[in-house]
Amino acid sequence: MKHLAILGSTGSIGQSTLSIVEQFPERYSVVALAAGRNVDEAFAQAVRWRPRVVSLATEELAAQLAARLRQAGITGIELVHGTEGTIVCATLPQANFVVSAIVGVAGLAATHAAILAGKPIGLANKECMVAAGEILTAAARQHNVPILPIDSEHNAVHQCLRVGAHNEVKFIWLTASGGPFRQLPLDQFVGITPEQALKHPTWVMGRRITIDSATMLNKGLEVIEACRLFDVAPSQVRVTIHPQSTVHSLVEFVDGSILAQISVTDMRLPILYALAHPERPASNLTFDLAALKHLEFEQPDFDRFPCLRLAFEAAEKGGTHCIALNAADEIAVAAFLERRIPFTGIPRTIEKVLAATPEAHPTTIAEVLAADREARERARVHLT
Amino acid sequence: MKHLAILGSTGSIGQSTLSIVEQFPERYSVVALAAGRNVDEAFAQAVRWRPRVVSLATEELAAQLAARLRQAGITGIELVHGTEGTIVCATLPQANFVVSAIVGVAGLAATHAAILAGKPIGLANKECMVAAGEILTAAARQHNVPILPIDSEHNAVHQCLRVGAHNEVKFIWLTASGGPFRQLPLDQFVGITPEQALKHPTWVMGRRITIDSATMLNKGLEVIEACRLFDVAPSQVRVTIHPQSTVHSLVEFVDGSILAQISVTDMRLPILYALAHPERPASNLTFDLAALKHLEFEQPDFDRFPCLRLAFEAAEKGGTHCIALNAADEIAVAAFLERRIPFTGIPRTIEKVLAATPEAHPTTIAEVLAADREARERARVHLT
Repeated sequence: MKHLAILGSTGSIGQSTLSIVEQFPERYSVVALAAGRNVDEAFAQAVRWRPRVVSLATEELAAQLAARLRQAGITGIELVHGTEGTIVCATLPQANFVVSAIVGVAGLAATHAAILAGKPIGLANKECMVAAGEILTAAARQHNVPILPIDSEHNAVHQCLRVGAHNEVKFIWLTASGGPFRQLPLDQFVGITPEQALKHPTWVMGRRITIDSATMLNKGLEVIEACRLFDVAPSQVRVTIHPQSTVHSLVEFVDGSILAQISVTDMRLPILYALAHPERPASNLTFDLAALKHLEFEQPDFDRFPCLRLAFEAAEKGGTHCIALNAADEIAVAAFLERRIPFTGIPRTIEKVLAATPEAHPTTIAEVLAADREARERARVHLT
Repeated sequence: MKHLAILGSTGSIGQSTLSIVEQFPERYSVVALAAGRNVDEAFAQAVRWRPRVVSLATEELAAQLAARLRQAGITGIELVHGTEGTIVCATLPQANFVVSAIVGVAGLAATHAAILAGKPIGLANKECMVAAGEILTAAARQHNVPILPIDSEHNAVHQCLRVGAHNEVKFIWLTASGGPFRQLPLDQFVGITPEQALKHPTWVMGRRITIDSATMLNKGLEVIEACRLFDVAPSQVRVTIHPQSTVHSLVEFVDGSILAQISVTDMRLPILYALAHPERPASNLTFDLAALKHLEFEQPDFDRFPCLRLAFEAAEKGGTHCIALNAADEIAVAAFLERRIPFTGIPRTIEKVLAATPEAHPTTIAEVLAADREARERARVHLT
């Protein structure tokens, strides 16, 4: 029986994780929920799942939830808040699996704490690995903690890697939908509006990740994540545009064999894989191979997607450059969504921030967070 | 170091195996070669590889080879012949890996003997598994002998199966090129000539297997082979037509994940995989994923390919019905190539032979060979 602490329980991955728990009550229970600011959803989850602990973003929100639980006559749930509260959830002695699904670097300290506490991790937060991958993977090795990727690409890679040894891997091929602009004439990129960029062809996702998908910065973060998760060099990671989003990624071995993973585009599948690993429970998430007709692949154009080039460069440098890539993008995307910079300003801003970022390799989470703050400051200055 | 006995050394798989040995002299040596009737090629191979034993089809051919080796001043190679000679090669004490690549049931006794002698098998001969799979897999289990499939489809399946447990397999999907007639109007099948049927769109192969590919009986034999090799029911094996022959097969797991293997269409790759398993040596058999554009899949039509339907029916019955399917097809294909029956006569003949075949499950190789002979007799009677 796996007793889950879910960090980011009211977000999309958190809710999908709970739907898996619902389907497999004999396999999973919920012992801790770290939510954010959505008290209504946190209340509903607390009532449904009766965890031992619930964490909210602030003391005030935690107090509101406490009052509502009291009114409803529900007792025995400890309420905590803030980063400390998330860490309480992540390190709860009763938890034996932690789903890390808080977006951004906010989930970093808690994910690190969970690893130090020896909890196996289902990792849905790619910023953690991008900003602090060197620290997290070193800690995971030291404490013999498995990190099971929950996003569809790395989950696919994790599966394909089982077919060979680590030193037999030639390339990891991450597939990308290519976003809505893979065929737009280059001279029209400057005029792309937030409304156009927020329409993703195959996945329904949050606002930043949808823009990141349109710039392919998202895939760039995944390149860095792949390097850290699977201990490969950036030159061993390649990206291929696959508009159908059916092949979730591939691994090419030195002998010439390529393994690909295919499935429905539903996050519950990688969540179930991570939770159940190394088992595979039967699910209804069936891909109709009989209906499969066409799969297309094409090579990404770095002129069209300069964010992808910047990400490979940052992956080579590591440390503060990966932190800055992620932080600068978050600021630039927010500015684009507020119409303060054009779509083409996103890579321009990131490039300037990277050029101004001193190379360094933080060794503590505090140093990572400091580098992240510095990069955000730089991005605000360089917005263009 | 693996010391190989190659059964069928002068055939296409045998020659490809020797080209792998040539590339990896530090991994492989040749200790026994079982050739057929091609004395010239057997002589060249004996000179090049200096095995301990060479077997030819008949005593006379072996004497010819002996004379040529004497003339060339080559000593120390034992010459044997016939089924007994092939068995000598297959069970040679110095051999620790046997490549079984003799076409047809001719390789059956030697493959069985190799398993009883505890030699790991690289199996390129699908008729062995179709005719005597129940006996061979039982012997392999008893003697703890791995059977590594060398044909591209089962080799792909073998790789994909490593990503999950046996009881987590939902379907094995064998890909098929669909042959040259997958889009021909049905009413024109009766007029197909041997010349038309011998043109295969993607693989260059022997004559019978090329016709079997056009009727898809070949894929039917592979369905039966998959059931035996991987211990699954016929209902767990499906066929999908994939004209590019790029995805060599797929495995669908119960959780919804599908794993696919992709590579160049070159038999050296599955041979290398089988020889090196569980390792993967680096090779130059690289598939250019960057050049991958389109993959197509479509469902096979049993009206167009009645041989495929007959194979699934035989797979359900097992034993003599699988033997008869293979034997009747061999006779019918030969008759088609001699223009004695039309293309549509191939499934018609097989169907009649199957209807006339009593259900039984041979438990010895002698019984298998007797059932094979009976089926051939029946096929000659029922040619139509």
